[in-house]
Amino acid sequence: MTRRAFVHRISANAPDDVSGLEARMRDGAIDGNAVVAVFGKTEGNGLVNDFSRGFATRALQDALRVHREDADADEPCIVMSGGTEGALAPHFLVFEARNSDEPDAPGALAIGRSRTPPLPHEHLGRLAQVDAVATGVRAAIDDAGIEAADEVHFVQIKCPLLTADRVAAADARGLPTATRDTLKSMSLSRAASALGVAVALREVDRPGLTEAAIGRDLSLFSSRASTSAGVELADHEIVVLGTAPNWSGPLRVGHCVMRDNIDVEPVRAVLAGLGLPAHGQLSETQRARVVALLAKAEAGSDGALRGYRHTMLNDSDISSTRHARAFVAGALASLIGHAEIFVSGGAEHQGPDGGGPVAIIAEQALSSGDARP
Amino acid sequence: MTRRAFVHRISANAPDDVSGLEARMRDGAIDGNAVVAVFGKTEGNGLVNDFSRGFATRALQDALRVHREDADADEPCIVMSGGTEGALAPHFLVFEARNSDEPDAPGALAIGRSRTPPLPHEHLGRLAQVDAVATGVRAAIDDAGIEAADEVHFVQIKCPLLTADRVAAADARGLPTATRDTLKSMSLSRAASALGVAVALREVDRPGLTEAAIGRDLSLFSSRASTSAGVELADHEIVVLGTAPNWSGPLRVGHCVMRDNIDVEPVRAVLAGLGLPAHGQLSETQRARVVALLAKAEAGSDGALRGYRHTMLNDSDISSTRHARAFVAGALASLIGHAEIFVSGGAEHQGPDGGGPVAIIAEQALSSGDARP
Amino acid sequence: MTRRAFVHRISANAPDDVSGLEARMRDGAIDGNAVVAVFGKTEGNGLVNDFSRGFATRALQDALRVHREDADADEPCIVMSGGTEGALAPHFLVFEARNSDEPDAPGALAIGRSRTPPLPHEHLGRLAQVDAVATGVRAAIDDAGIEAADEVHFVQIKCPLLTADRVAAADARGLPTATRDTLKSMSLSRAASALGVAVALREVDRPGLTEAAIGRDLSLFSSRASTSAGVELADHEIVVLGTAPNWSGPLRVGHCVMRDNIDVEPVRAVLAGLGLPAHGQLSETQRARVVALLAKAEAGSDGALRGYRHTMLNDSDISSTRHARAFVAGALASLIGHAEIFVSGGAEHQGPDGGGPVAIIAEQALSSGDARP
Amino acid sequence: MTRRAFVHRISANAPDDVSGLEARMRDGAIDGNAVVAVFGKTEGNGLVNDFSRGFATRALQDALRVHREDADADEPCIVMSGGTEGALAPHFLVFEARNSDEPDAPGALAIGRSRTPPLPHEHLGRLAQVDAVATGVRAAIDDAGIEAADEVHFVQIKCPLLTADRVAAADARGLPTATRDTLKSMSLSRAASALGVAVALREVDRPGLTEAAIGRDLSLFSSRASTSAGVELADHEIVVLGTAPNWSGPLRVGHCVMRDNIDVEPVRAVLAGLGLPAHGQLSETQRARVVALLAKAEAGSDGALRGYRHTMLNDSDISSTRHARAFVAGALASLIGHAEIFVSGGAEHQGPDGGGPVAIIAEQALSSGDARP
Repeated sequence: MTRRAFVHRISANAPDDVSGLEARMRDGAIDGNAVVAVFGKTEGNGLVNDFSRGFATRALQDALRVHREDADADEPCIVMSGGTEGALAPHFLVFEARNSDEPDAPGALAIGRSRTPPLPHEHLGRLAQVDAVATGVRAAIDDAGIEAADEVHFVQIKCPLLTADRVAAADARGLPTATRDTLKSMSLSRAASALGVAVALREVDRPGLTEAAIGRDLSLFSSRASTSAGVELADHEIVVLGTAPNWSGPLRVGHCVMRDNIDVEPVRAVLAGLGLPAHGQLSETQRARVVALLAKAEAGSDGALRGYRHTMLNDSDISSTRHARAFVAGALASLIGHAEIFVSGGAEHQGPDGGGPVAIIAEQALSSGDARP
Repeated sequence: MTRRAFVHRISANAPDDVSGLEARMRDGAIDGNAVVAVFGKTEGNGLVNDFSRGFATRALQDALRVHREDADADEPCIVMSGGTEGALAPHFLVFEARNSDEPDAPGALAIGRSRTPPLPHEHLGRLAQVDAVATGVRAAIDDAGIEAADEVHFVQIKCPLLTADRVAAADARGLPTATRDTLKSMSLSRAASALGVAVALREVDRPGLTEAAIGRDLSLFSSRASTSAGVELADHEIVVLGTAPNWSGPLRVGHCVMRDNIDVEPVRAVLAGLGLPAHGQLSETQRARVVALLAKAEAGSDGALRGYRHTMLNDSDISSTRHARAFVAGALASLIGHAEIFVSGGAEHQGPDGGGPVAIIAEQALSSGDARP
Repeated sequence: MTRRAFVHRISANAPDDVSGLEARMRDGAIDGNAVVAVFGKTEGNGLVNDFSRGFATRALQDALRVHREDADADEPCIVMSGGTEGALAPHFLVFEARNSDEPDAPGALAIGRSRTPPLPHEHLGRLAQVDAVATGVRAAIDDAGIEAADEVHFVQIKCPLLTADRVAAADARGLPTATRDTLKSMSLSRAASALGVAVALREVDRPGLTEAAIGRDLSLFSSRASTSAGVELADHEIVVLGTAPNWSGPLRVGHCVMRDNIDVEPVRAVLAGLGLPAHGQLSETQRARVVALLAKAEAGSDGALRGYRHTMLNDSDISSTRHARAFVAGALASLIGHAEIFVSGGAEHQGPDGGGPVAIIAEQALSSGDARP
Repeated sequence: MTRRAFVHRISANAPDDVSGLEARMRDGAIDGNAVVAVFGKTEGNGLVNDFSRGFATRALQDALRVHREDADADEPCIVMSGGTEGALAPHFLVFEARNSDEPDAPGALAIGRSRTPPLPHEHLGRLAQVDAVATGVRAAIDDAGIEAADEVHFVQIKCPLLTADRVAAADARGLPTATRDTLKSMSLSRAASALGVAVALREVDRPGLTEAAIGRDLSLFSSRASTSAGVELADHEIVVLGTAPNWSGPLRVGHCVMRDNIDVEPVRAVLAGLGLPAHGQLSETQRARVVALLAKAEAGSDGALRGYRHTMLNDSDISSTRHARAFVAGALASLIGHAEIFVSGGAEHQGPDGGGPVAIIAEQALSSGDARP
């Protein structure tokens, strides 16, 4: 008896286009009860007034509700990331964890989940949030059965933010929040959550960490964290991707860190490690085996890329996050051979300043009979 | 006695930052009298209300005027291309053609120029413009001494557009223009000019060409044209880059066509042909020998890249030209190793639908003593 | 036995915030079965990739379904208009038509509805669409019991658009569509629909109308049409506001045409006609009696307002529709005293070039006991 | 012997279109030597990457240089304000102060100027800047001969900002700046400068003012300050408009404060005070006598206008400053009758939160012979 992870990449024709998911649930390719998470790239601006995320979430939950025995559409972790700049293709990644009678497959993709307790608003952006997330990440690692920190390849966190009401509630308790600016609270929450991952994975030393470093000391970072803030939750939803005993199936995962927006050679090395070596762009055959690419992108805060000035941070018409997604997507798509990849922005403490973590899930070549669902 | 081309890539800190050009003219690295063209990437939106182009042009002409014996700042062909999306670095490319006593260097970069007569406004976007440009391109080829069409690697055209006044003037003569929409006239003028290049280079058969195909039949294209429309001229300014006898120096040029936004392997092959073979990204040593990369980028009109939907054409907040430049810049920069490259948009008949021509100028490794100015 | 119109203006905190509607249906202030239409201003860009409209529509239909005996959430006409530029406040206008035992109130607001048959795709933007809409408008006028064209004060039309699939289907039947450009089809459909209103209201002479005039001859217009194109329908939904016998209640309606973006004196006159005379801004008491203001806004095609150049049509960062809505909203809000008003863009044949129709619904002062639901 | 102020409003067809100024200098309508200031609305985004301001400044200085005996194009105070949203018309306001042999005209417009010493970078955004500006404003008041604070109607300040270099220079001296964020330094500098005006005009009590209030306590404001930050200066340029003895001519000035974006009745009262009473929009005759309208606009920080939510602060596609300018311009233009008015954004401590100061310069009706230059 093992567990087996399935990952389905489904193109979307609109934020609320869940017809692909529905068709797969109807024909049995996806078991709604086994769905643990859905990540999505939706075509809004990825910023404050991006309604494509909420629209997609509503449509996904309506679809899942029908096909789950518990009718609990909130159970799977839904992480919608806005912004499909450049040729990025809107799509959903549906993660299933099923029980299986296949034998253990060393190196098989393992998925773990956890939720933290609700975060008191005054803890947001502070060391208390770092600690809460670190504890949660350890729980998700345990849930997957992952045995060592270096077997973790990607940690997706959905974290809370402050609203005017939450700030007021904290004030009323005499416990002022770290910021009163709701947009800034998103950045602080992502930052503290990423440091929580870094602490759990022993990339950052907790005793040496000060509150002042959160969101400021960009030399501290996790190589595997990807965090996004949402108004719809008060706790943290955590999904860990890694490798563990007692998981089966042909999916494998690898990761690396890009030091800057065009640092693609480490990504090429990950592909090689997954059995997909290529001097240039992947061949069509190789490409078909790449199930998902997840990356974080951001503009370097020094206003330059390898010594040449970029204008992303001075552009008041287009946010730097949009520029960075489009540009990094071009770099990564030219390696993989298509642009249905998951590139998201806002990378505080997620990879070094101007860079970001990348994880790739690929299907291993099988000696016999394909086991795709 | 030969001619020798010099190409200087100069970073700019603002649209009107010509301090780099001025310094090089003062210290003799650039001879103002030998300057035949300046291409620039400036940091506006590259669309109708992009004032960074005019601002840069004014600053460049003021700087050149001081250092030219003829004080004719209009003599060099100034082509400013707006839009430095993603990490594209604002910069100028200054082209000089000097007399030299160096020996002939087979394959050396040759530069030719020409101007057409003023185009009657009613000819814009019609076969008469195609023919005028084709004649002009042949003149520029002759000016460079290029002996065969396949020795042409890049043709930059600056073409006119229609204004309300020009439309009215044509009306008054009883000769209505092809369009009354000034924005559309830019597109039509670029299209007809690109087909003019294609005719001159025998890529498109002139007898079979109909007026209806201009701007519409995207199966017709030049693999070496790059055209941009400007309000400041009524004729066409043409710059041809290629190879010819009687040119000297270490600069070499190559070109290819990207079939889509991530078709980078042909570019890798051009680099190899220029003596810069690389499996992944160029090494620092190799990168230092790349003087300029010139490319056109556009969103594929079918709304997809290799079968996956892109959202560039449906985005009413950001023009598709801006998305395409950012994305293609990422693909090309990840190959070269930096983003101080010349990627421009609006590629009607310039490469296939969704793709575009690329030209690279590189310095050949010298057996002895560097000849850089 | 009369009919009585109710109009509820409900603020929205987000596109999918239907809590105000739900609360009123729960407490009986709104009878879900009597709802005939919901108009809404939602906070997207009002252009192609505005998902706030679809998000709001989904939320409204989910809410209505629960409270309607027929469970037919499609029955009410849902018209979401994107774009709350400037200080425009996102809100919904819910229209009810109830049976009443109140006596006839001369001049009371009457509401009529109709739907046309599905429009063959090749008819879109052509005279056949004008005729189909004119017939539909007459049906809606009859539905309301309105007896004369000059008792019609506002006609809202939701019309279809072309998609790539629809263009292909028409091609397959050998009947090519008026345009192959889906964005342009929105404009053409709005234009033909507005002319349909103008024909039904005898503002434009049908025999003299040519197909070439549709979308081009801006001297032809309706003073009472407001049209918007949506992908979700293949026919036309029509809502007429006017006055008719056998309607009761305190609501009154008036209309005018602004000749340009700041032509507010006709609006002031409408207010006076509704019993709300004011030299400057309405007083608080007067303001409370204004239930809804509906207006269309657009940038004048000659690029000037009263002889002074505007830059709305040359701005490639912000669509002219967004500029026009913000600016006209400022003009109208300064008259009324708040900005929870319905200003929409895209005014082809809806008012003169650069101007637009305005309708105001106000509650008449009652001598005794208020009858607000 | 008196002084006489002339104010010329000149339409611009592009940021660098100074043909109107040049023509007036050539024909003597403007004496280049008497020009003390040029204010301009230019058609960029009014934000960080707005090159229309620099482009206009360069063109204006080139034009002025030719027509000034001192050839000092830096002498006149050039204040370019980007952003002509809505139908705002790009234009220049040229201020002259000439000697005159006309008699004293009580209430005539007086103009005064001053410059402060260069501001140490570490003083920016702090009480030291407030004090420096207050001293400078008093000097400009003296320069105009204005005798009392309540005879001041408008104070325009151009103030410095921080750059990375300036922050580093202050660091090197061991005197850290108030912020390291260059965009934020613009806001802080505008805020401290506005408070400097408020202190000079006795609107804010200097002893009670704390550093923490700068940019934060929005209950403190000047009713007559208009401040803008520019990278091109290290000191402050100050222009005061008011009334004073020994000035002649028909120009008069008045001011008021709008409490919010649609608080237009105080503006109507100013017009009446200038001899232009109107119940609705000004008549054409009245409108011709309005020489200039100067206003500041901003989005209210509470996210609402008179209790109804606005979305300006949550829009990540369009800056709130652009929304506010378009909307307030609509409100003011509907009063005056055209949109060639000077509405600028960024109103920290300039009028109350969500509102802003307005000043109007009008020509008094003359009993005999017009004295227009």
